[in-house]
Amino acid sequence: MGIGSSVDGTTGGHNSNNGVDGGGGGGGGGGGGGGPCGACKFLRRKCVNECIFAPYFDSDQGVANFAAVHKVFGSSNTSKLLHQIPPPMRSDAVLTICYEAQARLQDPVLGCANEILALQEQVFKPSFTPL
Amino acid sequence: MGIGSSVDGTTGGHNSNNGVDGGGGGGGGGGGGGGPCGACKFLRRKCVNECIFAPYFDSDQGVANFAAVHKVFGSSNTSKLLHQIPPPMRSDAVLTICYEAQARLQDPVLGCANEILALQEQVFKPSFTPL
Repeated sequence: MGIGSSVDGTTGGHNSNNGVDGGGGGGGGGGGGGGPCGACKFLRRKCVNECIFAPYFDSDQGVANFAAVHKVFGSSNTSKLLHQIPPPMRSDAVLTICYEAQARLQDPVLGCANEILALQEQVFKPSFTPL
Repeated sequence: MGIGSSVDGTTGGHNSNNGVDGGGGGGGGGGGGGGPCGACKFLRRKCVNECIFAPYFDSDQGVANFAAVHKVFGSSNTSKLLHQIPPPMRSDAVLTICYEAQARLQDPVLGCANEILALQEQVFKPSFTPL
């Protein structure tokens, strides 16, 4: 699983990934207009206009993404983290948070360190076959 | 920052890293014997014999490591995660959790995805210099 590029929706998606495949992110939505965003839907709470999660977790796929984030990081920690990040950089943060959360649920022991170790092996492996 | 190898202490350290540098982990300690472990010291609570954190967070360096884990993942989420992992694999889990937590505190936007993106660049960069 790579770091995803599926955060878009209302923010336009300020992601800095290199076109790698699949993964997290939520897609914008919710927050006052229609129904609740994916986070508030998951948390069964009213979604207010200034909801910190609404631009990044839509009421469809965003619910499952937020469920993973909630289980691994917790809503409160994630909300605090997003509040300390300037708004234009929050969609990148959500992308990486979703990615880490999903990686940890798939591999509770290594999480996304699995990917780091695999890449390190590729970077540091010898480029020749010893005799 | 690499994935660390400093978890040892009472568990003997079941870590599977490839000798990469620095990073997380706590070192064993606490849990009934002497004082509280690093986690219980941080949480200002009594450290019981069966404390899930005690083998991995000592009362010295473990306090700072646990503070990072607490801030990013939360104590309850981390405890739940460790309980679902077989004991021999928990020190690896603690290593990667500490690593991810410290990476997120250093880079709130990308966290350890920063390392993944850097490694991906190395893996996928062309091995020749174009004319």
